[in-house]
Amino acid sequence: MDDIKSLAEQIGRVLQTKGLFLATAESCTGGGVGYAITEIPGSSDWFDCGFITYSNTAKAELLDVPEALIAQFGSVSEEVVEAMAEGAIANSSAHVAIATTGIAGPGGAVPGKPVGTVCFGWAKDEHVHTERLVFSGDRQSVRQQTIVHALKGLLRFLEQAG
Amino acid sequence: MDDIKSLAEQIGRVLQTKGLFLATAESCTGGGVGYAITEIPGSSDWFDCGFITYSNTAKAELLDVPEALIAQFGSVSEEVVEAMAEGAIANSSAHVAIATTGIAGPGGAVPGKPVGTVCFGWAKDEHVHTERLVFSGDRQSVRQQTIVHALKGLLRFLEQAG
Repeated sequence: MDDIKSLAEQIGRVLQTKGLFLATAESCTGGGVGYAITEIPGSSDWFDCGFITYSNTAKAELLDVPEALIAQFGSVSEEVVEAMAEGAIANSSAHVAIATTGIAGPGGAVPGKPVGTVCFGWAKDEHVHTERLVFSGDRQSVRQQTIVHALKGLLRFLEQAG
Repeated sequence: MDDIKSLAEQIGRVLQTKGLFLATAESCTGGGVGYAITEIPGSSDWFDCGFITYSNTAKAELLDVPEALIAQFGSVSEEVVEAMAEGAIANSSAHVAIATTGIAGPGGAVPGKPVGTVCFGWAKDEHVHTERLVFSGDRQSVRQQTIVHALKGLLRFLEQAG
């Protein structure tokens, strides 16, 4: 957890220096990214809001993810996580977004997407970066690894997106 | 954490038996209630979505909390937490909502509202119950106590609201 807190602190410093606000769009982590970020005192200076879009209906209604995209690629896909990240920015006052969607297990595996498959999206303005990874471990471990990777990826993305 | 997981499991059993879906509206817990709930495998059968409305703008835009209510009573008030819980139901497919707003510290205290002040709202259809408590401890402790109380309160509320 110290690793997560240190990452969240670093993110806060970068966002505050740049004068940017963050939003989260979480499916498999269910609020864990937002919880990690708001563990930092003063995070209201750089965190705006988060969307926990656990159901596909919520992804469509709260983040404007096209239902056709979910039907075509599945809710765990780089196409959908990109739309989630963009939707978080479009539906908030934030400039930057983190999005996660994955199969934390123990159920939910589909052909080509084993348990542990997680898609990540990081967005700022018109820039979006996505990744798809497969983590090992139980539900709790997959979710913790997802939170860490989402935060590490945001730091890298902020360096690159300027 | 085992206490939290056990509470979330109990909530899942009650909601699934009643055929109800849950939404969360979190300010001071920043996603921690949603994270606790989605730690339970199969929670997609009874959890719809969550709103992490950390800023006042997000409370107004995502949950339709009237800005005049926030100006009059403050964002940490039973009036605002009631509107957050009602807004979570109105803006989702859920039947039941948990809402939290508070001052986790170390900063943020205002006259009459010391650090540790937390307001809770639980809503189902037209029924809403609110509470205001003051917890002791540091930021992490206040947030953990808030998550536990929010979950315990939901179990009681579901018994009473039928």
